[in-house]
Amino acid sequence: MNRTLVGIIMGSDSDLPVMKNASDVLLQFEVEHEIRIVSAHRTVHEMISYGESAKERGLEVLIAGAGGAAHLPGMIASLTLLPVIGVPIKTSSLDGIDSLLSIAQMPSGIPVATVAINGSSNAAILACQILAIKHQEILSKLEVYRTDMRSKVIASAEKVQEEYDAKRS
Amino acid sequence: MNRTLVGIIMGSDSDLPVMKNASDVLLQFEVEHEIRIVSAHRTVHEMISYGESAKERGLEVLIAGAGGAAHLPGMIASLTLLPVIGVPIKTSSLDGIDSLLSIAQMPSGIPVATVAINGSSNAAILACQILAIKHQEILSKLEVYRTDMRSKVIASAEKVQEEYDAKRS
Amino acid sequence: MNRTLVGIIMGSDSDLPVMKNASDVLLQFEVEHEIRIVSAHRTVHEMISYGESAKERGLEVLIAGAGGAAHLPGMIASLTLLPVIGVPIKTSSLDGIDSLLSIAQMPSGIPVATVAINGSSNAAILACQILAIKHQEILSKLEVYRTDMRSKVIASAEKVQEEYDAKRS
Amino acid sequence: MNRTLVGIIMGSDSDLPVMKNASDVLLQFEVEHEIRIVSAHRTVHEMISYGESAKERGLEVLIAGAGGAAHLPGMIASLTLLPVIGVPIKTSSLDGIDSLLSIAQMPSGIPVATVAINGSSNAAILACQILAIKHQEILSKLEVYRTDMRSKVIASAEKVQEEYDAKRS
Amino acid sequence: MNRTLVGIIMGSDSDLPVMKNASDVLLQFEVEHEIRIVSAHRTVHEMISYGESAKERGLEVLIAGAGGAAHLPGMIASLTLLPVIGVPIKTSSLDGIDSLLSIAQMPSGIPVATVAINGSSNAAILACQILAIKHQEILSKLEVYRTDMRSKVIASAEKVQEEYDAKRS
Amino acid sequence: MNRTLVGIIMGSDSDLPVMKNASDVLLQFEVEHEIRIVSAHRTVHEMISYGESAKERGLEVLIAGAGGAAHLPGMIASLTLLPVIGVPIKTSSLDGIDSLLSIAQMPSGIPVATVAINGSSNAAILACQILAIKHQEILSKLEVYRTDMRSKVIASAEKVQEEYDAKRS
Amino acid sequence: MNRTLVGIIMGSDSDLPVMKNASDVLLQFEVEHEIRIVSAHRTVHEMISYGESAKERGLEVLIAGAGGAAHLPGMIASLTLLPVIGVPIKTSSLDGIDSLLSIAQMPSGIPVATVAINGSSNAAILACQILAIKHQEILSKLEVYRTDMRSKVIASAEKVQEEYDAKRS
Amino acid sequence: MNRTLVGIIMGSDSDLPVMKNASDVLLQFEVEHEIRIVSAHRTVHEMISYGESAKERGLEVLIAGAGGAAHLPGMIASLTLLPVIGVPIKTSSLDGIDSLLSIAQMPSGIPVATVAINGSSNAAILACQILAIKHQEILSKLEVYRTDMRSKVIASAEKVQEEYDAKRS
Repeated sequence: MNRTLVGIIMGSDSDLPVMKNASDVLLQFEVEHEIRIVSAHRTVHEMISYGESAKERGLEVLIAGAGGAAHLPGMIASLTLLPVIGVPIKTSSLDGIDSLLSIAQMPSGIPVATVAINGSSNAAILACQILAIKHQEILSKLEVYRTDMRSKVIASAEKVQEEYDAKRS
Repeated sequence: MNRTLVGIIMGSDSDLPVMKNASDVLLQFEVEHEIRIVSAHRTVHEMISYGESAKERGLEVLIAGAGGAAHLPGMIASLTLLPVIGVPIKTSSLDGIDSLLSIAQMPSGIPVATVAINGSSNAAILACQILAIKHQEILSKLEVYRTDMRSKVIASAEKVQEEYDAKRS
Repeated sequence: MNRTLVGIIMGSDSDLPVMKNASDVLLQFEVEHEIRIVSAHRTVHEMISYGESAKERGLEVLIAGAGGAAHLPGMIASLTLLPVIGVPIKTSSLDGIDSLLSIAQMPSGIPVATVAINGSSNAAILACQILAIKHQEILSKLEVYRTDMRSKVIASAEKVQEEYDAKRS
Repeated sequence: MNRTLVGIIMGSDSDLPVMKNASDVLLQFEVEHEIRIVSAHRTVHEMISYGESAKERGLEVLIAGAGGAAHLPGMIASLTLLPVIGVPIKTSSLDGIDSLLSIAQMPSGIPVATVAINGSSNAAILACQILAIKHQEILSKLEVYRTDMRSKVIASAEKVQEEYDAKRS
Repeated sequence: MNRTLVGIIMGSDSDLPVMKNASDVLLQFEVEHEIRIVSAHRTVHEMISYGESAKERGLEVLIAGAGGAAHLPGMIASLTLLPVIGVPIKTSSLDGIDSLLSIAQMPSGIPVATVAINGSSNAAILACQILAIKHQEILSKLEVYRTDMRSKVIASAEKVQEEYDAKRS
Repeated sequence: MNRTLVGIIMGSDSDLPVMKNASDVLLQFEVEHEIRIVSAHRTVHEMISYGESAKERGLEVLIAGAGGAAHLPGMIASLTLLPVIGVPIKTSSLDGIDSLLSIAQMPSGIPVATVAINGSSNAAILACQILAIKHQEILSKLEVYRTDMRSKVIASAEKVQEEYDAKRS
Repeated sequence: MNRTLVGIIMGSDSDLPVMKNASDVLLQFEVEHEIRIVSAHRTVHEMISYGESAKERGLEVLIAGAGGAAHLPGMIASLTLLPVIGVPIKTSSLDGIDSLLSIAQMPSGIPVATVAINGSSNAAILACQILAIKHQEILSKLEVYRTDMRSKVIASAEKVQEEYDAKRS
Repeated sequence: MNRTLVGIIMGSDSDLPVMKNASDVLLQFEVEHEIRIVSAHRTVHEMISYGESAKERGLEVLIAGAGGAAHLPGMIASLTLLPVIGVPIKTSSLDGIDSLLSIAQMPSGIPVATVAINGSSNAAILACQILAIKHQEILSKLEVYRTDMRSKVIASAEKVQEEYDAKRS
């Protein structure tokens, strides 16, 4: 996939430690993407440009992370018809319940696909699942990912079972 | 669109009053869809069949509504690679905060695209936005929908302004 | 005061029953104001125009009401240097705690002066208190308002005391 | 007791530090048990096999630990008629209130016996109390356990009282 | 089953409308049981007698409902080695979150098997599942119950599907 | 008791329906008391006079009810050395959790004896228990009250047991 | 005061670090008191003896600390007519909101005077305020304490003001 | 600006680490201000004097920080007609949700302009925005501040974009 399909945005570089997990997952799936700092409150016009041009620039899914009174995902969603995935970022005071509610509780007409608090890697997987309904090669990679995930749990399960049974015998 | 693209599922027909809003929106967008009662706890094998066959049956997005210890969206998500949109249904005791957390806080690897409590119509719009990255005709309808929505707000805004200014003068 | 000093905005006319209390208070204080429907999510550009032109149009304080993932107050605050008062509107599912957190928990740099859930009349009083540091005639009205409020409590206190003492004797 | 009576399951080995307390208690009560990694979301079919075969394998009580959108206890409960004890595991973001609600708020027909957040040792005691209605030797051990627990509190109480009185005199 | 196996207790007859659902389920399963008003705070000694004699009176499982600062389930659990199932009753002020936390968050050593807020029918099913590890005839009834429950969902699912498809065609 | 011993205060007569329960209990215990409307926010100086003169006027315990940002109990407590009992009043938006936290979470040095949300009758009983360490006749009435309360529960328990056993036989 | 007037109790010596603050305050006020470990769940009969004999042993106020499903304060309150002050202890999982609700939300008839989470020193001050309505010498000490507290704040206020003004000039 | 326009107050010097951010922002805006320790509970009369004299002393906006049962902002607001900005301070037990509710949920008639938990720098900006409707020179500084803030985000955005693109190429 040579075209940039996913835009990962956040309001401040202080969100990078959480949001780069989304990038890491997309790299693993070989999905071209971009990371951008776009602030709903501090660079409104840049946000509007970003949201309104996202589709014509060829992006197909957006991932927006934000914390506290988290307005970026919902505002971006109002500026594009692309599906927007919102990542509520854990906050120092209220642990991210403020972020979760500010992102999930959108009014009728403008949905945001909300994932778990700090769930940026899941946001990337969800982006791949969305892309996979159109891009067959991403679907194949998702199948491998699922199989690997399952294999890892089974391997871990066997290891735990062996260790436990050894202790018992 | 003649093929059924969206599956709307819920664990009980008591969820229908909320979930039929999703169907109404899809009807409005002329997106073929199905409504099914599939219970994560009471018809596990039917749920598994539904989840595992959804893709090969041609579905492209799933919408799952559930309340309380809401397991259906997350379980379905673990059974398919299609994007799954979760609708937390308002509960009689805790107002749906239990539903919201049970759906949004999914572990790494299996995301659910969570919308607002009782946000079934937004779930349908999100489904359309996801489909629209592949199906051009849905995109066109989304554009009309957005324009209409905007027009309605503007009309309402003018009406309010007129009424208010009339009272003032 | 002939100039319109306060703008009361909300995202939908469904917020009017709560927000008109702000207007009623401003009428009582004879502060010229306007009521406008401006949606952060459905009429983004109108919101931007409103926010960016508010100051040059002569407004001095803005009051913005919103519920759920309540973005209007914070977004308006990012578009103007006027003080913005946010009114969290009670919601059907989470009683307005989502609105409160979405409005109060703003990031550094863009404050919103948040009042109580459904506290639109207090928003109007706060607007008057802000205006009063510049407009002497509003201060005088606030003084009368406070005195009246105090008198009403004292009258009510006397009535309760009398009724209660009568029952006792 | 030579037969394995209790199955302790969890979705990931990251839950082991909490869940091994359940095993330690069962060891103390000499109740044969097994520890297994079974993920509701990553190894669905293994979970179904585990749940559906638990009874015929001779297990009599299941203990399932899970965090966040904690679906394992409720799903296992839907797959077996054995009593299932759910342990809500403390999460990094919401402290386990999400886990607690996802486990306790089960719909009518499929109960989960929920214990405190991170309460895995209590889950094991509850398992023993359930087993004891059938297995007399476990009842005897529970009686000793209660007596010991009481004695320890009394010893601690005396020590505190002595230290405190010594300081006073 | 002629012997009384389950004791259903609550602190006040105001809890009866919720707790009688537990009795109804036990009647359906033909499990002999008793309903008693026993208050942790108003009849402490009766509570102690009840708890301490429950086992020797032949009871095998206790179900205790309580609301607010809900102490009855935990106190009864400290007075018997029988498994105690706690039903958090919905309260007028905090919707039962106080009841849930007061029952679920028990300290180490004295577990209470907590079910959902107002989940008294599930408490009865859980009681039957516990009894069924010893009483074969209850297991048979649980199997029928599960099959019926599954059949009802499937019947409802078919009805919904038919109605929906009829509307479409 | 001829002297007024208890002052019941609240910020508004809208709190009377809840707070008069405290008065009813005190009447039942024949404890002389007064009911006063004293607003922390609207009649600050009256509140200060009330708090500072309470002790010299012969009052021995104060009961203060308040809702929302409930400041009256804590402020009164800072103005007197009499014990102050705080009653968090249920609010229309947040059900009184705001009132509870605003009253209970007092800083070091100025305690408020907080009772349950809307727990005004318990506030009166607590007042009587405090008074009873000094006034023997109130202690006697408390003993009767407790005995009556216990008798009522036992009578209710017997009635429930009879009705239930009648249905069974 | 030579007689022991206050009993400080808690369920486990792990609560001592919090509860000894109550003792320190009482020492400062020269109020004789005792510290006892009494567990509602692990030493029920000792708790009953303690509660039922407290008054005849000459105690006049009880302070009970507990965390999680915090039953000790409410149970002790049901066993004595002495005023009982409850201290909700901060818990590792839910920060003490479970403790607060388990103590404050007592049913009608049995109040607990609840203070802030971990507010053991305030519990002791409240105990002194209650005792002071009978014991004049404690009132005098409370007056000194208040004056000192006020002086410390004023001294701190002056220091802050000086430092700040120095920086400015 | 040579006159002191803003008063920053808090109940204890333990609040200084949070509240000095407000002072730092005002220094940056060259707004003369004072920092004072004024306790609602420990120095009531000083608080009253402060509140009642604030306006005649020439202050135009007050900023009050408080934690837990946070009464200072609301009490000060009842003592002056100046706009009062409340800063909820994060608490050790409940993370500041108690502070937020105690400040925001003010009754009708006495508003407090509430900012985010620990949002003292935003309180200072809001103060400047309020002052700027009267003081032109503060408006100019706010314009510079906004521009700088925007520039910093853009610079950071460019840096992130460069680093990310470098990694990609």
